[in-house]
Amino acid sequence: MRWKLLFCLGVSAFTRVSAQDAADSVMLSRMFREGLRNGKAYENLRVLCKEIGPRLSGSPQADKAVEWGLNTFSALRPDSVFLQPIAVPQWVRGSAEEAAIITQMGIKRSNKSRPFAVETAPLRMPVRICALGGSIATSPEGLEAQVVEITRPTQLDSLGRKGVEGKIVFFNIPMDPTRINTFDAYGPAVRYRGAGARMAARYGALGAMIRSVTLATDTNPHTGAMGYVDSIPKIPACAISTVHANLLHDLLGKDPSLSFWFKQQCAYKGEVPSNNVIAELRGSEKPEEVITLGGHLDSWDLAEGAHDDGAGIVQTIECLRLLKQLGYKPKRTIRFVLFMNEENGLRGGKEYGAWAARRKNERYIAAMESDAGGFAPDGFCSEGTPAQRKRMQSWEPLFRPYGLHSFDREGGGADISPLEPLGTMMVELMPESQRYFDVHHSALDVLESVNPRELHLGAAAMAGMLYLLDRYGVSVADGK
Amino acid sequence: MRWKLLFCLGVSAFTRVSAQDAADSVMLSRMFREGLRNGKAYENLRVLCKEIGPRLSGSPQADKAVEWGLNTFSALRPDSVFLQPIAVPQWVRGSAEEAAIITQMGIKRSNKSRPFAVETAPLRMPVRICALGGSIATSPEGLEAQVVEITRPTQLDSLGRKGVEGKIVFFNIPMDPTRINTFDAYGPAVRYRGAGARMAARYGALGAMIRSVTLATDTNPHTGAMGYVDSIPKIPACAISTVHANLLHDLLGKDPSLSFWFKQQCAYKGEVPSNNVIAELRGSEKPEEVITLGGHLDSWDLAEGAHDDGAGIVQTIECLRLLKQLGYKPKRTIRFVLFMNEENGLRGGKEYGAWAARRKNERYIAAMESDAGGFAPDGFCSEGTPAQRKRMQSWEPLFRPYGLHSFDREGGGADISPLEPLGTMMVELMPESQRYFDVHHSALDVLESVNPRELHLGAAAMAGMLYLLDRYGVSVADGK
Repeated sequence: MRWKLLFCLGVSAFTRVSAQDAADSVMLSRMFREGLRNGKAYENLRVLCKEIGPRLSGSPQADKAVEWGLNTFSALRPDSVFLQPIAVPQWVRGSAEEAAIITQMGIKRSNKSRPFAVETAPLRMPVRICALGGSIATSPEGLEAQVVEITRPTQLDSLGRKGVEGKIVFFNIPMDPTRINTFDAYGPAVRYRGAGARMAARYGALGAMIRSVTLATDTNPHTGAMGYVDSIPKIPACAISTVHANLLHDLLGKDPSLSFWFKQQCAYKGEVPSNNVIAELRGSEKPEEVITLGGHLDSWDLAEGAHDDGAGIVQTIECLRLLKQLGYKPKRTIRFVLFMNEENGLRGGKEYGAWAARRKNERYIAAMESDAGGFAPDGFCSEGTPAQRKRMQSWEPLFRPYGLHSFDREGGGADISPLEPLGTMMVELMPESQRYFDVHHSALDVLESVNPRELHLGAAAMAGMLYLLDRYGVSVADGK
Repeated sequence: MRWKLLFCLGVSAFTRVSAQDAADSVMLSRMFREGLRNGKAYENLRVLCKEIGPRLSGSPQADKAVEWGLNTFSALRPDSVFLQPIAVPQWVRGSAEEAAIITQMGIKRSNKSRPFAVETAPLRMPVRICALGGSIATSPEGLEAQVVEITRPTQLDSLGRKGVEGKIVFFNIPMDPTRINTFDAYGPAVRYRGAGARMAARYGALGAMIRSVTLATDTNPHTGAMGYVDSIPKIPACAISTVHANLLHDLLGKDPSLSFWFKQQCAYKGEVPSNNVIAELRGSEKPEEVITLGGHLDSWDLAEGAHDDGAGIVQTIECLRLLKQLGYKPKRTIRFVLFMNEENGLRGGKEYGAWAARRKNERYIAAMESDAGGFAPDGFCSEGTPAQRKRMQSWEPLFRPYGLHSFDREGGGADISPLEPLGTMMVELMPESQRYFDVHHSALDVLESVNPRELHLGAAAMAGMLYLLDRYGVSVADGK
């Protein structure tokens, strides 16, 4: 590949901004140059992924991550660093192997040590599953029942108790591949991960299984949070890999009476103490106006949580480093938050929101989050009043030289959403989305799937947005 | 990560285009939907990478790729498929291991079978190199000489013959990490790959070595074309991995008298016959107006050429498939070209250009290439008259719903550049560039580094551009 060396992109972007904004262009340029030359986000991510590892809420690694976050923040010498205590649910996958087999009804087991010794040569296909986060265990021998497949949203209600009772409901509803932004395909599909077990149990199902929520076709199961309600029996819930979901679908086409057996030994252990980790730069002119930014420190347990949300954590820390390194003194108070427990409780986000609501002398003007992967940044989405969003969008030309072009999309992050009642504008970094769900909540979410430059571009973009929010401010929504 | 499900992107893009263009929106939507649902580009890439493999010009695999291209085109039933014979240079790396060691001057070799048995405990660090494409071999025992490091463009001339004669010149000039589009960083750095050997030999150097042209820091050497001129002695040239370039730099800081030994057994074998592979859809209204699109079928030999340029090849084929699948009958003649020998000769591109120049009854209005990787498409760059480029850029709103936003950048592809004298507008697909040079010309350029959705988005974008070029046409540059 050969390419003519041209510099028109930068030039054209500069001509679009007024002379008044020249200082902003210079500041953003300094942030990107420093980030791309000397960025520390990737090295921090290496430590978080390789020296700490998976850090599900309540795990020893999550505690270690809190300690690491505190130390990493402190080394950058913000005005203050503190922990915000919270209680988090502790759910454990258990050390026993998770296993599943597509089989046929009525196959006799001779004894427990040879559970699948059979009289005839039956179908017996081991497949890959993982328990969904929050699920109960199966019995130690596992759960076996006939499978009923759901491929359309309305199908479960049509089947009713008669079609579902005593069975394992297999929600085989894929992400829509024709959506361009993969997050648009995520929403409709992930519904069955959260609610599938209770939807199925209402009709007397014994177990629930979802097709892994990913656009990739491979053998990796993808976990994620699910929930029960007290009024409906609790049944075990798992996710099956997409390759094996396709296999099961094909086999059911030939023999609708197929059974499925799976075993998982996960358990909910109650609540344990944990913490948000917070660093603060005190505003020099308007300290009562607060800008919050953050990501979440917890991750799922199947991998290192490199994209979800190690990336958001190290980008948050990098924003602090960039402001300090460039000698920028904020006018407003900036709070950098490593939220705990986004994945299965949002306790950190809720506690920070409740704490903020009690601090009547402060105004929470804006909050920014990175929790959509560490890929090359495409832009920022936002939620808030039209006036708030318009202000944020007016800065788009400043970001164009760095490849960020999408500022119109609506959306905010989970951890900052509890600030919404305070009238806070919410902003979320929007990275290129094609690869995200390939790794999300699966064993593939490891450091090796993160590109250092993409990660550092995202961090520099966040630092640039932080600078603009601080320099120009934004009004909190009326009546809040 | 949670995200509000919103559809504003698509809606806002549709409002930007006039009602007149509604049919264009519908056509692009059909192309993207078909590509994302049923795209065959990734499966074709799997065959090209895994069943054929590396396909350097003149290799048996390159011949196999030509046959595969012919068959794959034919299966799609275009109006015609044909080969365009060319002669290509055949350069072979050789089966002997390439090896290199950072060592110290004057270390005695006891005999050939133990070349580095030494009297004292010396520095002796094996490092990873690869021969540059087109380089001559070292002697069978390898080449050993003192190293002189060049870190600034002007430094070689300052050193002159006195500082360089009898030495190995180490061009340690990295890509500029602060460039946002990595192709802007490639140009200045790759100069030493192409010309370093003759620059060094002019001053009497015995060998030349470049820092691998990549932004990644790892142990993979990256090859690529270099060239000699008859008036200057030919010396062996290789590339060292970036990790080892950094190591050598550090060691030279402590001991500037260090030596370097390397061995490579590559050879130029002369010219052999090969072919471009061409499929054609004959225009129904203006068959004399030709639109060309393509990628290059040859690759470097260190890996599978998945991004460079397997992606461009399978996207070109996918464009034909999409037009056929959607039943689109072009008004103008469209020629789909799998160019041979882009990497080390451009013989295919030159022959196609010369052939086109002879066909006086045809006008070559536009040519499009994909040779910048199979990553998510950001837009199209172009070369041509202001009027030509303005027409292409006017279609930007149609592509916005699909994430393509960058239409201002100037640039065209190598294989289509010989059409420039015919007044042809040149267009090149511009994918996200951050990861490209991590894999480019190295052992990492394998299928696994390609994301199927990103590849198919690029193909659909090209098909959309092809449709618009065909529907609206474009004037050839004046006086050509």
